[in-house]
This record gives sequence, structure tokens and C-alpha cells, in this order.
Amino acid sequence: MWSEKRARMALSCAVDGGEPEAARLLARVGAQGAWAKIAEGALGEPLARRAAATDVDVVERLGARVGARFVVPGEEEWVPGLDDLAHVDPIQRRGGVPFGLWLRGPGHLPALAARSVAVVGSRAATAYGSGIATDLAAELAEHGVTVVSGMAFGIDAAAHRGALAADGPTVAVVANGVDVVYPPGNTALFEAVAKEHLVASELPPGAHPTRVRFLARNRLIAALAGGTVVVEAALRSGARNTAGWALECGRPLMAVPGPVHSRASTAPHLMIRNGQATLVTCAAEVLELVTGLGEHPVSPGVTPQRATDALTEDQLAVFEATPARRRVSSGEIALAAGVPVPSCLAALHVLEGLGLVEAGDQGWRAVPHRAMLPAPA
Amino acid sequence: MWSEKRARMALSCAVDGGEPEAARLLARVGAQGAWAKIAEGALGEPLARRAAATDVDVVERLGARVGARFVVPGEEEWVPGLDDLAHVDPIQRRGGVPFGLWLRGPGHLPALAARSVAVVGSRAATAYGSGIATDLAAELAEHGVTVVSGMAFGIDAAAHRGALAADGPTVAVVANGVDVVYPPGNTALFEAVAKEHLVASELPPGAHPTRVRFLARNRLIAALAGGTVVVEAALRSGARNTAGWALECGRPLMAVPGPVHSRASTAPHLMIRNGQATLVTCAAEVLELVTGLGEHPVSPGVTPQRATDALTEDQLAVFEATPARRRVSSGEIALAAGVPVPSCLAALHVLEGLGLVEAGDQGWRAVPHRAMLPAPA
Repeated sequence: MWSEKRARMALSCAVDGGEPEAARLLARVGAQGAWAKIAEGALGEPLARRAAATDVDVVERLGARVGARFVVPGEEEWVPGLDDLAHVDPIQRRGGVPFGLWLRGPGHLPALAARSVAVVGSRAATAYGSGIATDLAAELAEHGVTVVSGMAFGIDAAAHRGALAADGPTVAVVANGVDVVYPPGNTALFEAVAKEHLVASELPPGAHPTRVRFLARNRLIAALAGGTVVVEAALRSGARNTAGWALECGRPLMAVPGPVHSRASTAPHLMIRNGQATLVTCAAEVLELVTGLGEHPVSPGVTPQRATDALTEDQLAVFEATPARRRVSSGEIALAAGVPVPSCLAALHVLEGLGLVEAGDQGWRAVPHRAMLPAPA
Repeated sequence: MWSEKRARMALSCAVDGGEPEAARLLARVGAQGAWAKIAEGALGEPLARRAAATDVDVVERLGARVGARFVVPGEEEWVPGLDDLAHVDPIQRRGGVPFGLWLRGPGHLPALAARSVAVVGSRAATAYGSGIATDLAAELAEHGVTVVSGMAFGIDAAAHRGALAADGPTVAVVANGVDVVYPPGNTALFEAVAKEHLVASELPPGAHPTRVRFLARNRLIAALAGGTVVVEAALRSGARNTAGWALECGRPLMAVPGPVHSRASTAPHLMIRNGQATLVTCAAEVLELVTGLGEHPVSPGVTPQRATDALTEDQLAVFEATPARRRVSSGEIALAAGVPVPSCLAALHVLEGLGLVEAGDQGWRAVPHRAMLPAPA
């Protein structure tokens, strides 16, 4: 008799991730029961044939070759956030909680996921998009935030590279076995992430990617991370699919704007316009939105606050009409500012309180350098 | 005794636009009464002195030299939208309905304003921003939409130029007399707009701009236009002030995104992120948002809809697993797709109904070219 964990490992070999009938069966009779029923043909002859062809020992040997481990729900290295996938409508979205996850690398998944952001986007990224993905990932990583992505060409690779460049944590969630380096063009990157951090997959060692597996993989990226940033993406793209999963899982969805003529920014712009995604331009804005990462508030702005910012238009007019180099009467100021004398006097007293003007025997004068100082907190 | 209209003309000479106490006085005792009281010193000595210095005949002569006319609320060429300014808090925002408007040019203001969008932004525009302002304005103008702007360098000038290039309508709302060409660098543009369309101002002929007048002018741009688009703007800028007025007047506020490293896109990005402005990338998206201009819906997307777009992930997996060049059994398809046979059969029947697969004696085959056709409406 197999253990529940071994039965889950077998299920992950025979049934592609998140298959809804298998998930229902699993919920009802457990992994061993589900495996037995699938082997008996309860979900049809094809799955029974797949089950019969499954050799868990082979899969385990392939995994052992690269030092991979298999974790299942409830274990110490499981990430509770993945369980949110149970609440996503399984009919419209082929999803659900994975049977288990294969992990390769020294990273500890729950620790990595606890402070994490997914940075995803097009394979066909522009130099602009790749640069932003790298910078954003590097800055997030510098704050100790794990960059989760999919190891694809373009934005994904740029994001992993940015995190590595900052000596920060990154997790690659792939649509193939953690022992299968894909895409071959990213071999060095894949191996660096596996060696220093973590590669994760719901597919057994030896498995190769398919379109359906890429789509299913996207749900794991969205569910593992505390929020998802789409850097560049076409209207039809895997990144948009990941974005949909992030929304379904209740994670903050963010998108980076770009030049309006850039096709690669079409999906980010549409998602922002629709209100699905929040516009972000830098890591600080991302951290502000991702729950639990809020200890890095956005700096007050590109330019510091000025003491004059809080003034009404009348007060501003009065302040601007008050000379600094000589003293004048409130009547002269009112005339120059084009406001009635009572309003002018009221404004002057507010400005005096702020240290922006000062009264004297010969009248009022401005303290103009004060206007450029930061406002009192 | 002056007429109400002549009294309003006099008020517009002595009192800067939207001064709240003058507006209250006007509402209570009418223009002639307000003028008499201001001249008597009811709003202070400075305003009384300004009133005494006002020579309406001189102003009228200056206006007549350039063929300018003065219109007041209730007249045929008045724009009711300007009256929305009466509802804006006069303490925080120095605003209110203007006493009247000086108009110069052959355009008919209410006709121009009825279908209009303000396109505004930084003086210090980038080539990107200026290009977008020109293109956006040209496209709006081609749809017969009036481009309202402020005749400043940068985005404003680019917007007016775009409208003129498309032989479309444009209105310049200036912070000086309509006979005063400002800024001098835009002389040719100013004169083209005045000759072909319309220059408008609440300030009397002969008046020169001041910072306070620029700010007050912004409320007229926002209130005249059916919506406001900010193309590029710094955090502290006149365009952001105009944006605030658009919101206060209940007009749709839109902003154009740009590269995240561009300082000129800081304010648009912030306003979009805050939810104050809707992201727009083209004229069609602007027209969709501006009330009454909705007859130009946004095209369904950059790429056409495909018949496969509406499929569930299971249906898509089944469709992709069905070969086109030979016929196979539903069992084989279920195996290849990794879905149970009952789900596979259900999916095949949906796909058959969509014309994406066909059943025959030897099994199923895909009709793959159908997948690329537009979805039935």
C-alpha cells in the first residue's frame, strides 16, 4: 500500500495539473483511493492507461539525480497560498490545488513565498520591458522580496536575472520536470536559479512542457506570489493568463505602463484601463500594494513637499504678491493679489503662522526661502 | 446706467476671475449692483481703486481692434457647462463662473464646446509627449471633436497644431487678453487659431498673464471641454491643476501613460494609479469615455477575436489534441489531452457545434483553419 504522498506523486504523473474530476475524486476519497479508482477506469480508459504506464520509481530516480524533493499539502514546505486555488471555478479555469510540488534547489519555499512578487510578461519583450523587469526584480530582491517567474524568454528571464544580479531570492515555476532544462536557451539561468534558489513544478521529473501545461503552470505562479506584476504582454499571452489567476486568487495585480505605440504594452494598458490592474512604475509602488510588504511606503514624490502646497489659491496669490526685499501694507498686497482686504489680511495671518511672511512696523514682507523648505510633518 | 453686460465687462477688468466675495456679491445684487458696491469700497479699498482705474471704453476699443466680442451667461454664445464652476468650493479653489468671456475668431463657442476634449500638458514636453498630443488632437479633430487647450509651449501647442493639421476645430483658452499674443514664440499658432477657430479669455483685452491668472484660466479649459486628457505633466504643474478642475466639474479625466523613467509622465502615472484618471492610449479610447461622444466605440482589440477564445481550458486542450490530418477516437483524444473521456466527449460536442471539429465514421478530426476565423457575433 502506497502512502498518501506517494499516491499524490503518482497522480501528478498520470493526471495533468488541476484536472477537475480528479480533484473532486481526491477530495472525496483521498489520494490512495483516487489513484485506485483512476487505475480501475473511474475517470475513463485513457487515464487508466496513463495510470498503468506510470512508474513512480523511475520518476523518483529522475528526481533524485538532480536532488529534487516532492512536497504535498500539509507538509512543512507546503505553501498555504496554493490552497487558494481550490476556490477557483474549475470549469472555466482548468486549475485547482496541485497534487504536490517538485522542488529543486536550496531555497525553502514557504520562506521564499512569504515575501514574494511575481514578475511576468511576454517572451517577445522589448528592450524597454526587459530593462524594467530586470530593474524591478533587482530592487525587489534588494528588499529581500522573492521574485517569482516562469523561466521563459523575455520578461521572465529578465526578472530572474535581475534578482540574481542583486543577490536576491528568486523562484522559477516551470511547466516541465525540474530536471528538464527548458527553454534550452536559458540553460545557464535555469541552472543558476536551481543551484542558488529554487525551481518548482507540479510536473514529475522527466516531463516536457505543452501549451496546456504552460497555462496550468501560470496558476501556480499567481498563487505562490503575494502579487503579480505584468511588465509587458500582448492581448493574448501567458502573462495575461497569469494575471487572470492572480485576480481569481485575490492577489494584487499590477501592470507597468509603457509607450502607447508599443504593442508589448497593450495588455498592461488594457488591464490598467479596465481597473483590473494597478499601474506601477517602481518597486516601492509594488511593495506598497502587496499585503505584508507594506513596510516600504512609497516616497512622498519625486519632488519634496513645499510649505506652499497646502495653501488655498487666495493664500498663494497673497504670498506671491508679498515682496521679500521691502515691506508693504496689506492694502498694497491685496491690490497686487487681486483679493479683497479682509481676505488678504486673513491670508497674511495664515502665512505668518506658517513662517512664510512676517509682519513689522513698516508692513509685511515675504520669507521666500521658507517656501522651498519641506512642509512640517 | 450701465447694462448688466457692461457691468460684467467692468467687473472682469477690475476683479480677477472667480474671486469668491465678488461672485457672492454678484449673485446677491447683480452685476450693476456689485459694480456700484465694489466702487464704493464694499470689498476693500484696493478693489475700489482698481474699479476707479477701469476704463471700459478703452477695453472695448482694444477688443474691437481684433474683432473680439464679449459674451455673458444666458446669451446665445454662452456655454452652460461653465456654470458648473458655480458648484466648486470657492475657498479651496479660486474659481467660480467667469463674469463673461472675450471671444476672438469665427468659431461659435457653444457649437465648438458641445463636442470637445481638452488636451493639456507640460510646457517641458518630450518628443514622445508632443507627438502623442499632436496625433491625439488630429484624430479627435478628424472626428469633428474640438481640441481645447491653453496655447502654452509643449503639449498645449502640439495639441492645437494637431487639430489645425487635421483641419479640425480648436479653441485656445488664454490667461491674457485675446488681443495679446502670448507666449510670443507661439505667435503664428495663436494667430492661426484666432483666424480659423476661436481664442477665448475671461480677461479683458490688454491684460497680461500672471501665475494666478494661469491657474484661474485652467478652470475654464476644464469646464468648457467635455473631458480632459493630460498627456505629460510634472507632479506640480498647470496641467495637474486643470485635471483637478475637470474632476471638480464632474468631467471625465484621462491621462496618457509613457515610459516609467520619463519625468514628464510622472503626473499621468500618479493620477492613473490613484484612480483619478483613466488610462487612454488613443483617440478612440478618449471618445468612448467622453459623454455624448460615445458613437465611436473602441475597436474590439488590436487582434481580432478567435473562435477558440470562448473555450474552457478543457475544451481548448481537447481541440489542441485533435489532429486535423487524420481521424481519431474520442478515447485517443482524451488520452492526448489528459482529460477524462466524459469531459472529452462533452468538449468535442461543444467544439463540433462551433465548427471547430467534425465527427465521422472513422472518428474525430479538427477543422483548424476555423479557429483563426472571427468568432460569430
